[in-house]
Amino acid sequence: MSGSPERVTIKDVAARAGVSKGAVSLAFNHKPGVSEATRERIFAVARELGWTPSATARSLSSRRVDIIGLALCRPARLLGLEPFYMDFISGIESVLAERSCSLLLRLVRDLDEEIALYKEWWRGRMIAGAILVDFREDDPRVPSLQGLGMPVVAVGHPSLTGPFPAVWTDDASAVTEAVRYLAALGHRRIARVGGPADLGHSVIRARAFADTVRDLGLEEAPQVGTGFDEKEGARATRTLLLGADRPTAIVYDNDIMAVAGAGVAAEMGLTVPDDLSLVAWDDSQLCRITHPTLSAMSHDVHHFGAEVARVLFDVVAGMHTGGHQVPTPSLIPRGSTAPAPGAGPS
Amino acid sequence: MSGSPERVTIKDVAARAGVSKGAVSLAFNHKPGVSEATRERIFAVARELGWTPSATARSLSSRRVDIIGLALCRPARLLGLEPFYMDFISGIESVLAERSCSLLLRLVRDLDEEIALYKEWWRGRMIAGAILVDFREDDPRVPSLQGLGMPVVAVGHPSLTGPFPAVWTDDASAVTEAVRYLAALGHRRIARVGGPADLGHSVIRARAFADTVRDLGLEEAPQVGTGFDEKEGARATRTLLLGADRPTAIVYDNDIMAVAGAGVAAEMGLTVPDDLSLVAWDDSQLCRITHPTLSAMSHDVHHFGAEVARVLFDVVAGMHTGGHQVPTPSLIPRGSTAPAPGAGPS
Repeated sequence: MSGSPERVTIKDVAARAGVSKGAVSLAFNHKPGVSEATRERIFAVARELGWTPSATARSLSSRRVDIIGLALCRPARLLGLEPFYMDFISGIESVLAERSCSLLLRLVRDLDEEIALYKEWWRGRMIAGAILVDFREDDPRVPSLQGLGMPVVAVGHPSLTGPFPAVWTDDASAVTEAVRYLAALGHRRIARVGGPADLGHSVIRARAFADTVRDLGLEEAPQVGTGFDEKEGARATRTLLLGADRPTAIVYDNDIMAVAGAGVAAEMGLTVPDDLSLVAWDDSQLCRITHPTLSAMSHDVHHFGAEVARVLFDVVAGMHTGGHQVPTPSLIPRGSTAPAPGAGPS
Repeated sequence: MSGSPERVTIKDVAARAGVSKGAVSLAFNHKPGVSEATRERIFAVARELGWTPSATARSLSSRRVDIIGLALCRPARLLGLEPFYMDFISGIESVLAERSCSLLLRLVRDLDEEIALYKEWWRGRMIAGAILVDFREDDPRVPSLQGLGMPVVAVGHPSLTGPFPAVWTDDASAVTEAVRYLAALGHRRIARVGGPADLGHSVIRARAFADTVRDLGLEEAPQVGTGFDEKEGARATRTLLLGADRPTAIVYDNDIMAVAGAGVAAEMGLTVPDDLSLVAWDDSQLCRITHPTLSAMSHDVHHFGAEVARVLFDVVAGMHTGGHQVPTPSLIPRGSTAPAPGAGPS
């Protein structure tokens, strides 16, 4: 354990890092003027010495530079159940903690509340910048917040996020890979259980799914929109499996719905993967402990969150930053996918 | 979707709730003077009308009344993997969202940093109160923060939390129940994989475990402290199973370690539950999707977090509040526990 952080001063940090006190201040205030390498060295030294900028070193009348805002329009329960957002937040926090910054987290009911909240936070000088997530098509946050001058990173495809610097994954390519993989296993009726139909990334995935099904000459199969939770994932799966043309494979938009879908298959006497193949999305630890294990479109969500935070600090520091694509989810085949019933392996 | 929250005024909320504007203000500022029932009615109406207190309605020079602080001395990665804190935070957020409040979340490296941070947040008028977690024995936060006048809820047993109002679960009784259950199944060598040895609740569980083992005349069996993550849970399980006196049952301090332990058992050719019984703690969805499913000491962690937030609002409002115990985790027997090898059911 390091000594008391109150004994170490900014002078000590500057001396150890071989820079001026001003450079330490610039680094911690996320202002331009120090290179990324120097900034990282300063953070490393501060961490080693246990030093953090104190209230007295910051003018309380000016804007907070050590707080980032994140509003989520999601039910509280889902936040604790769906691994995506907590893993994403853990990635954000990993970068914030290095820089002695905090996350101001709020659950909102709708985008009107979110817009009002960001205006309040920004005008109240509460936050240095904001992370916007879950973009809709024609998202009202774009016109409402772009004139504020608030540093923003938008988590979503650049076609959705207006002028804000975007960080995104290529959902369309990932969906295409999932469908092609199942088609190669001989599946002809592939359904999809998606997220809320008004989310931009749901729309992108739905389009890519329909396009790939058509391109491959597969049977047209239903896509069902849900609220991402286990119950809706189970209900959607039950509906699909009770339909006249039962699919032989289902692609899910997250992992808890795929886990629930596997449960429904068992309850209906279907064996996964012999009778039904399942592909999950996001690939948390859940996918590795089910029986059978779940094939998934896998990406490093913690790293995704960390990248979002890093890009936001660049934006706050006034560094010119364009969009930034993180790695595309890629298929990890596990025990829940197999050749379609009656089809040999391709 | 409700209309724009900027069109609805505090007057509308007061009229609809049948109270004065002042009462609405008191409710949202978490001040005494309105009953809990009235407060809840005001929140319900505000929610219905889509109204939230705006920046202009709050004096920016005064203390923020709509932000609660939470510092966690945990690795960022663990926050995304261990279901406990996600579910706990989702519970806190469920209550905060109802009251249009936000959570200021920070990961800290040690308690010195945490103490300095809370002093800064409180003196900087950033937060209305704080949630302190992961108490140690002789926790330095008690002497350092008790003189601040900051409203605090301490999540931990009252023997650890000094003068702060505490919200806690009875860990000792829960450990005793777990050991008694396994002993009733004929197990004589029961080991425990615990959390970090310096955490107060680890100490309480370790003592209760040792006491129960002695009271029941069982063989003295090892308890191993870990950092709560999967790797350490796996390593501890491997060490226990390679020892001369292999235990026939293991109690874990969370669920991801129990899941990892089940994996280690399989890797060593042991069948759960025939050769080895496992009991998890906290009982997230993980325990229900493993094969076999995991018996667990189960409690509603989301509700625990919500209770903590509610008690904190009472403290902020100046309402006298003593300690508050939430329900004790209770055993949910599932597929990972069975009579000890060679023992009949008791």
